[in-house]
Amino acid sequence: MALYVQKYGGTSVGSIERIEAVADRVKKTRDSGHDVVVVVSAMSGETNRLVGLAQQISPEPTPREMDTLLATGEQVTIALLSMALHRRDCPARSFTGWQAGIKTDSAHTKARIQQIDVGSMQQELAAGRVVVVAGFQGVDDADNITTLGRGGSDTTGVALAAALKADECQIYTDVDGVYTTDPRVVPEARRMAQVTFEEMLEMASLGSKVLQIRAVEFAGKYNVPLRVLSSFVDGPGTLITLEGDETMEKPVISGIAFNRDESKLSIMGVPDLPGVASRILGPVSAANVEVDMIVQNISEEGNTDFTFTVHRSDFRRTQTILEGITEDLGAREVLGDDRIAKVSIVGVGMRSHAGVASRMFDALAAESINIQLISTSEIKISVVIEEKYLELAVRALHSAFGLDAVEETA
Amino acid sequence: MALYVQKYGGTSVGSIERIEAVADRVKKTRDSGHDVVVVVSAMSGETNRLVGLAQQISPEPTPREMDTLLATGEQVTIALLSMALHRRDCPARSFTGWQAGIKTDSAHTKARIQQIDVGSMQQELAAGRVVVVAGFQGVDDADNITTLGRGGSDTTGVALAAALKADECQIYTDVDGVYTTDPRVVPEARRMAQVTFEEMLEMASLGSKVLQIRAVEFAGKYNVPLRVLSSFVDGPGTLITLEGDETMEKPVISGIAFNRDESKLSIMGVPDLPGVASRILGPVSAANVEVDMIVQNISEEGNTDFTFTVHRSDFRRTQTILEGITEDLGAREVLGDDRIAKVSIVGVGMRSHAGVASRMFDALAAESINIQLISTSEIKISVVIEEKYLELAVRALHSAFGLDAVEETA
Repeated sequence: MALYVQKYGGTSVGSIERIEAVADRVKKTRDSGHDVVVVVSAMSGETNRLVGLAQQISPEPTPREMDTLLATGEQVTIALLSMALHRRDCPARSFTGWQAGIKTDSAHTKARIQQIDVGSMQQELAAGRVVVVAGFQGVDDADNITTLGRGGSDTTGVALAAALKADECQIYTDVDGVYTTDPRVVPEARRMAQVTFEEMLEMASLGSKVLQIRAVEFAGKYNVPLRVLSSFVDGPGTLITLEGDETMEKPVISGIAFNRDESKLSIMGVPDLPGVASRILGPVSAANVEVDMIVQNISEEGNTDFTFTVHRSDFRRTQTILEGITEDLGAREVLGDDRIAKVSIVGVGMRSHAGVASRMFDALAAESINIQLISTSEIKISVVIEEKYLELAVRALHSAFGLDAVEETA
Repeated sequence: MALYVQKYGGTSVGSIERIEAVADRVKKTRDSGHDVVVVVSAMSGETNRLVGLAQQISPEPTPREMDTLLATGEQVTIALLSMALHRRDCPARSFTGWQAGIKTDSAHTKARIQQIDVGSMQQELAAGRVVVVAGFQGVDDADNITTLGRGGSDTTGVALAAALKADECQIYTDVDGVYTTDPRVVPEARRMAQVTFEEMLEMASLGSKVLQIRAVEFAGKYNVPLRVLSSFVDGPGTLITLEGDETMEKPVISGIAFNRDESKLSIMGVPDLPGVASRILGPVSAANVEVDMIVQNISEEGNTDFTFTVHRSDFRRTQTILEGITEDLGAREVLGDDRIAKVSIVGVGMRSHAGVASRMFDALAAESINIQLISTSEIKISVVIEEKYLELAVRALHSAFGLDAVEETA
């Protein structure tokens, strides 16, 4: 008998019928002899409805009250799901964040879980009941209701799995697992049977947004086996664990992530002095522009070229900021391009395999795709290319690294 | 500086604009130097929406989960109202039932308040903040969310006023006070400046449903001055207190209540033996039929006629029950009439005034209205008449007891 934490997102509980389907699935797991803790989000659309009400009152609603407001969304779902389970003669009990003993800090709208008092949940599990917990919410030391921020239900699921020492945290979504790349771009993209936390982190931050990045970090930190499954189609999904599956021949690269909406800006001929990077990026981050890749090459005659990428929607604003500081910096000029894309290959396998980078560059060269920027981490190589080559690049790399060919083995 | 508990019902907080209007009113009270505790209901329509969701899942939803579900309605309102107050630079803090320390028994969907831990609310008041409390809800000893049943927000308001020793509990509704009778029937009906708890109880149970009867009982028990006011129109409303206003010349009768949807049933020629009343009413109450008036006259030749009234919608069902037991009881026959109405005069003044009953009967006789049944309590006389005379009877009594003439003195 195992203990599973099953997390269902907003789409999976988006209507009464879908809540009934979740109840069927939970009961099936329970009937197989397993203990189940269910974590649910607000029904899809509900959070937006509540945010809409708040914004009619104030452009900047009080954070504490925003949390009190938003927490009702999940509270509705836990009550409805528990009723649906009762109706199936499957004893269940709902827990709001505070009832579940989920203690957070006091950072309203983006609180972090500090501790979970699992006593009352364990009592219900021991009594043979399914425990249904409101995701995304908790309570601080002063009994204020807090929320973990959007998508925080994944984090709740993982945190509960860690605190309850669950055998697996199963994240049910509208996709049936994590793919080697976006199947809309590469029809040959495969569902991965298994992937490591590190790989998931690199992929999540690069655009394969199946899971909240915080939840993956959390799962990695506490070594909670995480499984992504579809709440609509039966299947094994993708298991995310600390170490790759040693029993199978792992491909060097696990997956290919990409990001279309990028733009790059270069400030050319900057005198290469200490502190210059922060003098460039300081005003940018002060304007709340998020910077992604940062590339600086070695200097030539005491001058260097400083390049970084930002989301395409921030391009013009950032360009204006840079032009305003060019003279002060003693730089030559600002160049920009908002028609670029980023492609990354990700895999723990590249740690032990030489020549991965050159194989990537060869594959792109074979398609005459020019590489504009390169940036690497231990398990990832990212390149920036002209946007129009994006699909071609992803397909070429998917094939070059043998991802098309590997059979599903889960 | 006084402490006021202000309770706003579902209609008063039924839209964002109305919540803004409530915030204006609360701020005005606060700016006059008073402390304010606000109790709010769910936005009108919200409770029905939630009940609808539950009923799609189960015809008999789990009571505990029903409470968890419904409690979200008020939680949304407290958050929105607190935001609206903040926006007006009026510091405020929302409290759900459990945050407000409202402890109830465990009778889900109809819980009773047992105790209120006012510590944290008093702390907020001392810090100059408005306290905004979710009505209708509480928490039991095991931290389960409970609700007080429909309309329970009035009870929350009164209970908080009692616990906090407030100077007045102000119930804001969509009417501007308690009237001597229904103004739709008698255009001369006046708003009463003051009325006693006992009178309100007799009127509430007779159809002038401005306030929840439980809330009035509670206010009477703890002697909390209660004021009914309009949330849409400024005015003094009606003050409900333990003793009538001694400073003004009170009319003998305070108001005239009536109930249109009545029906009466008589079981004729019942042998007048001990236990016969319970043998008649036992099967009726077992069928969940609520009995209103019960009249039994003295017996003649060992036989008596037993009459009672029930809601018109229960008439046929009750008739069938009685016909089924006629033979067993040794009774002669069952008579019934579902076209009757009940009219009552209510007033603490009748305690000290003789001749009130005869004045009532004279007034009805003058209009040739036949009285079918009479029932009295210490501060109330009720008669049953043919339904078609209802409006005529109410107008005649309103005038006969001088209610048309008395000037408003609040």
